[in-house]
Amino acid sequence: QGILERLDAGEIVIGDGGFVFALEKRGYVKAGPWTPEATVEHPEAVRQLHREFLRAGSNVLQTFTFYASEDKLENRGNYVAEKISCQKVNEAACDIAREVANEGDALVAGGVSQTPSYLSCKDKTEVKAAFRKQLEVFMKKNVDFLIAEYFEHVEEAVWAVEVLKESGKPVAATMCIGPEGDMHGVSPGQCAVQLVKAGASIVGVNCHFDPETSVETVRLMKEGLQAAKLKAHLMCQPLAFHTPDCGKQGFIDLPEFPFGLEPRIATRWDIQKYARKAYDVGIRFIGGCCGFEPYHIRAIAEELGPERGFLPEASEKHGNWGDNLSMHTKPWVRARARKEYWENLKPASGRPYCPCMSKPDGWGVTKGAKELMQQKEATTEQQLKELFQKKK
Amino acid sequence: QGILERLDAGEIVIGDGGFVFALEKRGYVKAGPWTPEATVEHPEAVRQLHREFLRAGSNVLQTFTFYASEDKLENRGNYVAEKISCQKVNEAACDIAREVANEGDALVAGGVSQTPSYLSCKDKTEVKAAFRKQLEVFMKKNVDFLIAEYFEHVEEAVWAVEVLKESGKPVAATMCIGPEGDMHGVSPGQCAVQLVKAGASIVGVNCHFDPETSVETVRLMKEGLQAAKLKAHLMCQPLAFHTPDCGKQGFIDLPEFPFGLEPRIATRWDIQKYARKAYDVGIRFIGGCCGFEPYHIRAIAEELGPERGFLPEASEKHGNWGDNLSMHTKPWVRARARKEYWENLKPASGRPYCPCMSKPDGWGVTKGAKELMQQKEATTEQQLKELFQKKK
Amino acid sequence: QGILERLDAGEIVIGDGGFVFALEKRGYVKAGPWTPEATVEHPEAVRQLHREFLRAGSNVLQTFTFYASEDKLENRGNYVAEKISCQKVNEAACDIAREVANEGDALVAGGVSQTPSYLSCKDKTEVKAAFRKQLEVFMKKNVDFLIAEYFEHVEEAVWAVEVLKESGKPVAATMCIGPEGDMHGVSPGQCAVQLVKAGASIVGVNCHFDPETSVETVRLMKEGLQAAKLKAHLMCQPLAFHTPDCGKQGFIDLPEFPFGLEPRIATRWDIQKYARKAYDVGIRFIGGCCGFEPYHIRAIAEELGPERGFLPEASEKHGNWGDNLSMHTKPWVRARARKEYWENLKPASGRPYCPCMSKPDGWGVTKGAKELMQQKEATTEQQLKELFQKKK
Amino acid sequence: QGILERLDAGEIVIGDGGFVFALEKRGYVKAGPWTPEATVEHPEAVRQLHREFLRAGSNVLQTFTFYASEDKLENRGNYVAEKISCQKVNEAACDIAREVANEGDALVAGGVSQTPSYLSCKDKTEVKAAFRKQLEVFMKKNVDFLIAEYFEHVEEAVWAVEVLKESGKPVAATMCIGPEGDMHGVSPGQCAVQLVKAGASIVGVNCHFDPETSVETVRLMKEGLQAAKLKAHLMCQPLAFHTPDCGKQGFIDLPEFPFGLEPRIATRWDIQKYARKAYDVGIRFIGGCCGFEPYHIRAIAEELGPERGFLPEASEKHGNWGDNLSMHTKPWVRARARKEYWENLKPASGRPYCPCMSKPDGWGVTKGAKELMQQKEATTEQQLKELFQKKK
Repeated sequence: QGILERLDAGEIVIGDGGFVFALEKRGYVKAGPWTPEATVEHPEAVRQLHREFLRAGSNVLQTFTFYASEDKLENRGNYVAEKISCQKVNEAACDIAREVANEGDALVAGGVSQTPSYLSCKDKTEVKAAFRKQLEVFMKKNVDFLIAEYFEHVEEAVWAVEVLKESGKPVAATMCIGPEGDMHGVSPGQCAVQLVKAGASIVGVNCHFDPETSVETVRLMKEGLQAAKLKAHLMCQPLAFHTPDCGKQGFIDLPEFPFGLEPRIATRWDIQKYARKAYDVGIRFIGGCCGFEPYHIRAIAEELGPERGFLPEASEKHGNWGDNLSMHTKPWVRARARKEYWENLKPASGRPYCPCMSKPDGWGVTKGAKELMQQKEATTEQQLKELFQKKK
Repeated sequence: QGILERLDAGEIVIGDGGFVFALEKRGYVKAGPWTPEATVEHPEAVRQLHREFLRAGSNVLQTFTFYASEDKLENRGNYVAEKISCQKVNEAACDIAREVANEGDALVAGGVSQTPSYLSCKDKTEVKAAFRKQLEVFMKKNVDFLIAEYFEHVEEAVWAVEVLKESGKPVAATMCIGPEGDMHGVSPGQCAVQLVKAGASIVGVNCHFDPETSVETVRLMKEGLQAAKLKAHLMCQPLAFHTPDCGKQGFIDLPEFPFGLEPRIATRWDIQKYARKAYDVGIRFIGGCCGFEPYHIRAIAEELGPERGFLPEASEKHGNWGDNLSMHTKPWVRARARKEYWENLKPASGRPYCPCMSKPDGWGVTKGAKELMQQKEATTEQQLKELFQKKK
Repeated sequence: QGILERLDAGEIVIGDGGFVFALEKRGYVKAGPWTPEATVEHPEAVRQLHREFLRAGSNVLQTFTFYASEDKLENRGNYVAEKISCQKVNEAACDIAREVANEGDALVAGGVSQTPSYLSCKDKTEVKAAFRKQLEVFMKKNVDFLIAEYFEHVEEAVWAVEVLKESGKPVAATMCIGPEGDMHGVSPGQCAVQLVKAGASIVGVNCHFDPETSVETVRLMKEGLQAAKLKAHLMCQPLAFHTPDCGKQGFIDLPEFPFGLEPRIATRWDIQKYARKAYDVGIRFIGGCCGFEPYHIRAIAEELGPERGFLPEASEKHGNWGDNLSMHTKPWVRARARKEYWENLKPASGRPYCPCMSKPDGWGVTKGAKELMQQKEATTEQQLKELFQKKK
Repeated sequence: QGILERLDAGEIVIGDGGFVFALEKRGYVKAGPWTPEATVEHPEAVRQLHREFLRAGSNVLQTFTFYASEDKLENRGNYVAEKISCQKVNEAACDIAREVANEGDALVAGGVSQTPSYLSCKDKTEVKAAFRKQLEVFMKKNVDFLIAEYFEHVEEAVWAVEVLKESGKPVAATMCIGPEGDMHGVSPGQCAVQLVKAGASIVGVNCHFDPETSVETVRLMKEGLQAAKLKAHLMCQPLAFHTPDCGKQGFIDLPEFPFGLEPRIATRWDIQKYARKAYDVGIRFIGGCCGFEPYHIRAIAEELGPERGFLPEASEKHGNWGDNLSMHTKPWVRARARKEYWENLKPASGRPYCPCMSKPDGWGVTKGAKELMQQKEATTEQQLKELFQKKK
C-alpha cells in the first residue's frame, strides 16, 4: 500500500530519524558540509542505520540524499570525494533504502532539500533543474513517493513540489520553519496553502525546532488550510533537541550548534509526549529529524501502540515505561519501573556551571564573532569557495 | 604487538566505548538485564558498532561479553532467549570482535565482570568457576588479552584476576569505584595494590562515574601503588555522563538512570579535556564505558593526536576543533570554527524547568519509592526471579 | 514644583519602592492581608523606610495606604487591629510621608488601589464611595497629587481616576497588567486610552511583572495613546523580581509567591538596565513596586545621574559600578571594580537542585492544590470571612 | 540574666543578623570598606535595624562595631569621615544597642574583629593594643559580654580572646572559616581547642559560608573539643546566602561578591531548616551574619518556638508556615498555606541564562582580571592607600 492509501485509511505512519547527525556521531558524515557521500563510501553504515530505524518502527525510509543536489556536492563535497558523482551518491542511497525496506514493511521516499542555487539567487529554471536531476535518479530507482524537505523559503519549496509532481508520484513537503513562518515572513498557514496548491498531498515541518514548537507550527498550517478550505495530510519531523530559546532561524543560531547540543537531547519520554501531542493535533505522518536516534523513533511507535494495535520489532528489547527495571537488584531502581516516575522526572543536567538557555547568535553576535566575520567576509558561496581554495 | 609491548614502549592505547548503552539506543539490548545476546541474535549490529569504534581510533576491541556469565544469563537473559547458551553468546562475541579487529590494527580483549554469584554470597570456588567458564571460551578463541572489569568489590576482582592469570595472557583489571573506594570501604590505592599483587599488569577504573572523577580515582590508585613500590600500567574507561552529584555507588543511584541521562551526555570537547587530564596523570590506556559513542572515542584520539603522531580514520569526517564550520553560509556559525570557542562554551540545557543536580536515591529515598519497595520486598536474586515468574 | 510641572519640563521623576514587601521582611506587615496598619502601630518603621527611599533618590513618596480602603481593612485587617479605623491608618500614612518629604525635595502622593468591593461585583456607586472615603483624607492632609495604582481591571481604574479627578489635583494611574492586557482582555493601549480619557495625566503600570516586561507594557500603552492622538506622561513601577515565566496574572500565580521569591530578586545592575530601557522608551516617572529596596531606587538614580546632573544622598555610600572595591585587599576582588564586570556577570543561584523557571499555578494547578481547594471552597469574600471565623 | 546563665540553663539564645549588608542596601554603609560610621552619621537607621532584630527575636544585640578598630577606620574609613574618631563610632554603637536592648529583654555584646594590623604582620603587642582600645569603650559603656568574631586566623583570634578576657566579662569567639579550617590550615577542632584554652566560653563560626556548611564546621569544632575533653557552648552565625560552590576562603572569592549575590539569598524556610540542624547538632547560640534580615532571624525563633515555648513579637505579623495565605482570594494561593508546600518548594531563579554555580576567583582568576591586577599591583595596605590617594 502506498503512502496516500495508508494515510487516507487513517493509519498512523511513522517516519525515520536524522541521518546526518546520527552518522556524524558514528564517524561517516562531516558536520558543516553534511553531505551524504557515505552511501558510496560506507554503504554498510548507512544500511545499518536504516535497519535500526526500520526495527524501531519506521514505515518510511528516506533515501539518504540530503544536500545531494549537484550544486551542493560540488560546493561542499568536492574536497571530500572529487570522484564521487552526484548521481552515484543518489543511486546508492536509493538502492540501500530499498534493500532495507524489503526486510520489512516500509516505503522508500526520495528526498530533495533546499539548494545553494536558490540561496545565491539563481533563477527558477536553474533551481528546478537541480531538483530534476535528483528526481531522475528517484524515477530510475522507482521510489515509492517523494519528499521536498528542509526549505526555509516557501517559494523554493513550491518549485520543488512542482518538479516532483511531474513524476506522478505522491509528494510530501515540509519546511524548516517555526510559528513565525518562512524567512520572507510568509506565515505557516500561507506556506501550507501554497504547497498544497502546488500539488503536495502531505505538508508539515521538519528540522530546526524542537518537537513542541514544531507541532504548534503544523497546527498553524492546519488552520491555514482549513481557512482556505484545502485538504492535506499533516506531517511533522522535528529535532530531538530542546530549543525553547531559539529564534526565527532555528537551532543553527544557537551557540551550541552543532557540537554542544548534547544537554538538549530529548529523552524517550519527551518523545512520547511529542507523539501524543502530534496525534492529538491530527498529524498522522510522525517522524523525526536531526537528533532522532532509533530509540526515539521507537518511543513514537510505543506511545501510539494502543492506537496502532502493535509494537515495533525493537520493542522486544524495551519495557513499557521502564518496566524492564522491575528486576533490578536495587529496590530504588525497581521503584523506577513505572510510567508516573518517568513522566514526571525533571532530569538534571549534571552541569551546575552551565545555564539553561542561550541567546541565539545572528542578530546580536558577540564582538569576538564580529571580528572573525570581518576577517572572513565571504558571504556568497563563490567567495566561500575561493576562501577555501586559498586556505588549502 | 601485544598490549604490554605497546604500553611498555610508552604508546597511548585507546580503548573502545560502551556497548550496552549504545546498542540499547539502537534497539538491540534491553536496559535492566543489559545482557549481550545480540552477539547471536543480531551480529551485524554488534559488528557495525565495533567497526565504528575501530574507525574512531580504538586499539582494543573488547568482546561484547558484559554480564555474559552463566549465572547472569540464566537469571536475567533467559526470558529473552532461553535457547541461547552462555557459550554461544561468548563465542559469537569473540568471533565478531576478531573479524573487525582484523580490518585494522586492533587487539581483542576478552572481558569478565562481576557476578550475581558473588553478590548472593556464593563462595570463592563457585564464583571462580563462573569466570573460568568464560575464560575457556576466550582461550579457545585465542583473544589477545583479558580484562576483569566492572567490579564493586575488590575481593571479587582479585578472584577474577587470579582465574584470568591462569591463562598466561596479560590481565587488566578495572573497578567501577570512585575516590571513596569499593563497597566494603577499601580505598582506591589499596584496591590497586591488591589487584597488582593478584597478577594484574594494568589497573584502573571503568563505568559508574564521570571522566573527571574517574581520573581522580586512578590518580589515587597510582599513589597507592607508588606507596607500595609496585608498578603497573594505568587504565581509565569512565562514563560519558556528567555526574557531579552521584554518591559512592555511582550513577545507578541517580534518579535519571537509565532513561533520563540525556542532559548529562558529554560533548566531544568534554572528552578532549578528559583525554588530556588522563594523559597528564600518567594513564596510557584511555577509553570509555557507558555513554561513549564512536565520536567520543575519536575525541580522545584527536586530543592525543600530537602525542601519537596520527589521527584515526574517522577524523577524515571531522575538522579539528570545529574547523569544518569555516565554510558555513552564516558568518556567526563560521565564527565557531575555532578551539577557543568550543573550549569555553558552557552549553545550555534547553530545559529551564529542570535542575542541574539531583539527590541520589538509595540512602534517602522518596516516600513513593519506599512504598513501592515495600510492595516488592525481594532483595535476593532468588526472590526477584520468583517475583518475575509470578508477574508473567 | 508639582509633579506635572516637573514632567512637563522634561525632568526625570524617580518613584519609591515597595512598602508591603520591605516592611514584611522587617516584621511590620503581614503577607496575605498586606494591610498598612503599621502607619499607626509602628510609625517609626514606616518613617525610616520613607527616609531610606528619599535618601536613595525618590522624588515622590507615596502614602503607605495600599489596601487601606475601608472594605479591605474590614475584610482582612480587622483581625489584626479591630480598633484601628481606616481613617486613622490613612491619616497617619499622610502625616508620616509629609514629615519625611519635608526632609528633602519630594512630593507626597496619595494612593488608592483595587477594592474587594469591585471584585465582589459591587456597583459603580459603591466602589466609587470607597475611593472617595480615602480621597477625603488625602484632601484633608493636602497631598501633592494622587495615584490610582494596582488595578487588574481598567473599568475599576477608570472609576478610581474619575473620583480622584474630583479633587482637582493631578492624577496618575497605573495598572498591574502585562502585555496581554487587563483581566477582561483590554489591551495595554486601550487601557491607557481609557485612563487618559477619564482624566489621568500620567499612565503606566505597577507591580505583577518584572522590569523588562513592564517597560514593554508601557511601550504598548504609548503606542495606543499615539494611535488615539492622546498625550500623557508615562510611568513604570515594576517588581524587583525576575519573572520570565509568569502568565497573564503575574507573579502571584508563580509557585514561589510570596515566600520563595528570593532567588528572583534583581541586582542593582539589573535595575540600572531597567532604568536605561525605561528612559529610552520615553518613560519619565520611573520607580518600583514589590521587591524594590532602597538600593534599587538608588540604582535608578545612579544610572540616570548623567541625564539628571546629580546623584542622590545615598550615593555617598556607593561607588559607581563597584568602584568602591578598588581598595579591597584581594586583587581579584579589586578586579571587580569596573562596569564591564558587573554588566556582564551572570549571577549563579547557588541552588543546583532548583530549576530556573516555574510553571504558574492557576490554570494548571497540581492535584494536591486542587484537593485543598475543594476543602476550602470559599470563593467570595463573605465565604472567606466565615471560613476564617470558623477557624478561629 | 547574663549570657552564660542562659546558656548554662539550657536556653536557646538567638543572635542578630548582618548589619553591614542590611545597612548597605538601606544606603548607610559603603561596600568595600564596610565601616560602621553610620552609628554617628545616622543613628536612627542603626537603631531601627537593632529594633527590627529585637522584634524578630534576637536575644543579643551586637554593637555595630564591625571593622571599627582604629587601624581599619584610618585605612578605609578616613575618606568617608575624617573627623569621626574610632572612639566616637564605638561609643555611639554601644549607646544605640543599649537603648534598643532596654526596649526588650536583650543583652548587649561588644564585638571586635580581625585587624589590618595582623594581616600586615604587625606583632602581637601592636595587634592586642588595637583590641584593647575597643575594649576600653566596651568597658566604659558596660556591655553585657564580648564577642571576638570574623577571624580567618586562629592565632589572631586567640590574641583577641586574651585581651577580652582581661575584662572579666564572658567572651565568645567565632571564626569565619569552613570545614577546611583557618588560613594557616588549623582544623576547626584545633581552632576551638585553642580558643577555649585562651578563655572563650562560647565558640563557633560566623560569616563566609552558608548555614549548612557552617553548622558542619561547628560540629567539627564540637568533636575537637570532645576529643580534648574541653567544654564550651557552641555558636553559629552564618551567611544567609547559598554558597555550595565556594572555596576555602568563603564567599568573598565568589564572582558574585558583593553586588550579585541576590539569587543566593536564603528563604525563611531555608533558615528554619538551618535552625533545626543547628539545634540538633547541639548549638544553642544561633544567629546570622551577612544577608540575614529581620525575617530570617524571626524564622529561627519560629522554628524553635516549640522548644522555647514562645514566639517573638514580629510573629504577630507572620503566619506559621504561610498560614496567613489561607484567606487569599485565589484558591491556588490558599493551597500554599501549609508547611509541606514550603518545605518542598524548589524555588526557581527566574534567570534561565544564568548558571547554578560559579567557580571562585582567586586561584584560577580570569585573564581579564589578571591584567587588571597587574595594573594595580598594590598588595599591602600601604600601597593600597597610596594608590587611592593618587586616584583622588
